[in-house]
Amino acid sequence: MRELTVELGERSYPIYIGEGLLDQAGELFVKQGIGKKSPMLIVTDERVAERHLAKLAAVLQEAGYQVTSAVVPSGESSKSLSVFESLMTKALQAGLDRKSTVVALGGGVVGDLAGFVAASYMRGVKFVQVPTTILAHDSSVGGKVAVNHPLAKNIIGAFHQPELVLYDLNTLQTLPPREVSAGLSEVVKHGLIWDAEFVQWCDDHAERLLALDPESLGYALYKGCGVKAAVVSRDEKENDLRMILNLGHTIGHALEAVAGYNELLHGEAISIGMVGSARLAVKLGAPEQVLTVTKRVLTRVGLPVRLPEHLDTDRIMEAMSHDKKFLEGTMVFIVPTAIGHVEINKSVSTALVREIVEQLKQEAVQA
Amino acid sequence: MRELTVELGERSYPIYIGEGLLDQAGELFVKQGIGKKSPMLIVTDERVAERHLAKLAAVLQEAGYQVTSAVVPSGESSKSLSVFESLMTKALQAGLDRKSTVVALGGGVVGDLAGFVAASYMRGVKFVQVPTTILAHDSSVGGKVAVNHPLAKNIIGAFHQPELVLYDLNTLQTLPPREVSAGLSEVVKHGLIWDAEFVQWCDDHAERLLALDPESLGYALYKGCGVKAAVVSRDEKENDLRMILNLGHTIGHALEAVAGYNELLHGEAISIGMVGSARLAVKLGAPEQVLTVTKRVLTRVGLPVRLPEHLDTDRIMEAMSHDKKFLEGTMVFIVPTAIGHVEINKSVSTALVREIVEQLKQEAVQA
Repeated sequence: MRELTVELGERSYPIYIGEGLLDQAGELFVKQGIGKKSPMLIVTDERVAERHLAKLAAVLQEAGYQVTSAVVPSGESSKSLSVFESLMTKALQAGLDRKSTVVALGGGVVGDLAGFVAASYMRGVKFVQVPTTILAHDSSVGGKVAVNHPLAKNIIGAFHQPELVLYDLNTLQTLPPREVSAGLSEVVKHGLIWDAEFVQWCDDHAERLLALDPESLGYALYKGCGVKAAVVSRDEKENDLRMILNLGHTIGHALEAVAGYNELLHGEAISIGMVGSARLAVKLGAPEQVLTVTKRVLTRVGLPVRLPEHLDTDRIMEAMSHDKKFLEGTMVFIVPTAIGHVEINKSVSTALVREIVEQLKQEAVQA
Repeated sequence: MRELTVELGERSYPIYIGEGLLDQAGELFVKQGIGKKSPMLIVTDERVAERHLAKLAAVLQEAGYQVTSAVVPSGESSKSLSVFESLMTKALQAGLDRKSTVVALGGGVVGDLAGFVAASYMRGVKFVQVPTTILAHDSSVGGKVAVNHPLAKNIIGAFHQPELVLYDLNTLQTLPPREVSAGLSEVVKHGLIWDAEFVQWCDDHAERLLALDPESLGYALYKGCGVKAAVVSRDEKENDLRMILNLGHTIGHALEAVAGYNELLHGEAISIGMVGSARLAVKLGAPEQVLTVTKRVLTRVGLPVRLPEHLDTDRIMEAMSHDKKFLEGTMVFIVPTAIGHVEINKSVSTALVREIVEQLKQEAVQA
């Protein structure tokens, strides 16, 4: 088992990564001070419920916890205010009180949704993340929780840190290949913004990662979570540094919105967005290698680098204007000036972004 | 102009109380560091909009702020997730960004609703309270914001402190008499929990308060806000001490829920709840005088002390079980052991509460 700490003073918390950790959930919860007197709500989705809910609930019940669960439909559409409200109803009916804990068992959608429930129920109760996807190594660390608004993603939310993150590598073994690749998108991102050596490691271990080799996967998640934790510790509320975690997200979020949250998985949209950022970087003077390495490593882990041609450029630009990173009239872009290093550029012109979006539709796809 | 500070370290903020303060809104906003580059959203209700919105918007625009406004229906029913969502839409359409400010112009409903919008929009933007009712002297200070769930009041919310509270006494001059009395309920509460001398002052000045004499009103709000600020400074997140502010609220919230949020105003329900708490206190050994003084001062400021007989006791008890103050299986009551002093009693039995509720239906009404 690997262990990391997100350093946030009194609100510091551990991330555990290893095989078979669901079996240890009871003792790890107790160690973290999760109380047993108040009812606990596990939030999960249909697909994850089928595979892991009975197990987690049984382990926690055996440890003495009063467990209720709520199962939401799988997919991004559950990150809505109406599903949020139904979970509030469930929490009330189950008698959750101010000392209760909400547990998110699932991927990023479940984590974001259950996290906002935990942040808002009675103005905030405890929260535990049990991620079951690779992608969620990103969203489960750092306390950003939210639901979507029909006009923009993640616009209704809070900063609400979990008490612990419990990452059981066994839950990743049943992920479909497309989701494995999509999940690796944020792993690669953490390398691109912070650690050139780790980008090279991802390139070298792409096949093992795609084959879900536990040792490689454990290391990749440990490194990815490590970058995330380091950044969040320095800037919890995204005043400045934390923005670098948004590499690829300005374009990526717009693509997801325009494609309807279904055609492109989050990781795929971010992959295309990171290629866009690399292309922007080169245009602003970064070495060509930033673009070629970015494209190569993303391609090797099975991710798209070209923007689907039928997505309308005007609609993409419009969606971008609603982004939280559109600040006081200028556009904020995270620009990779070298592999393993990014800068925050707050004055990228709309015209240049439009040009990049157009070019992304022609992006050469490598073998 | 009277000025108070809510001491919360980096998040400390001022409360200004005085006549004609709306005219000074521009300079007071600037003094508090509210930026002008990002659009600002004023949230208000239909009744307040008619009287004060044009004025406040004009003053702020003149000072250089970009002002948009949203008007919600008057009344508790606006504290819903659906109105909350419509305000999120409005904020997005108006182009609010992370540096924007949400201004609540109105009573407690508007403050709670707009505050939760400010707490959640893009995971939190700045917030200013411009209360226009006496009751809101309580809710506008302390950062508790929330909307209601059909099953329970204030169950979906956050702690989100304002940047400043701007209390223009002139806006109170058009309050209907019933709302004046209801507002004085929380003023009296602040005396009952903290300051026996101020309870006596309220008793002596009841007529002047009901006549909206500015000098008396300004002093009463200054004292009321002062108690609130003192308590919140010591316990922002309601871990212990802050609970004392809930005097009368355990029964009061249940009465509001059962009466449908319309028959009883919040202050009226709390008034009956405070009489219940005093009765409970006497039953637990406090001097009879706690009950007689509580009833006398509430009666003098025009508040009800008897529970309407047609409200069903079973339903009142059921509503109480959903209360946030129903903690880990026991009931938490704030009990006035003397005038100006309360204790937190965490082990009041349901049977005793039921007895009190029944007695409240027979409560003698004094002249």
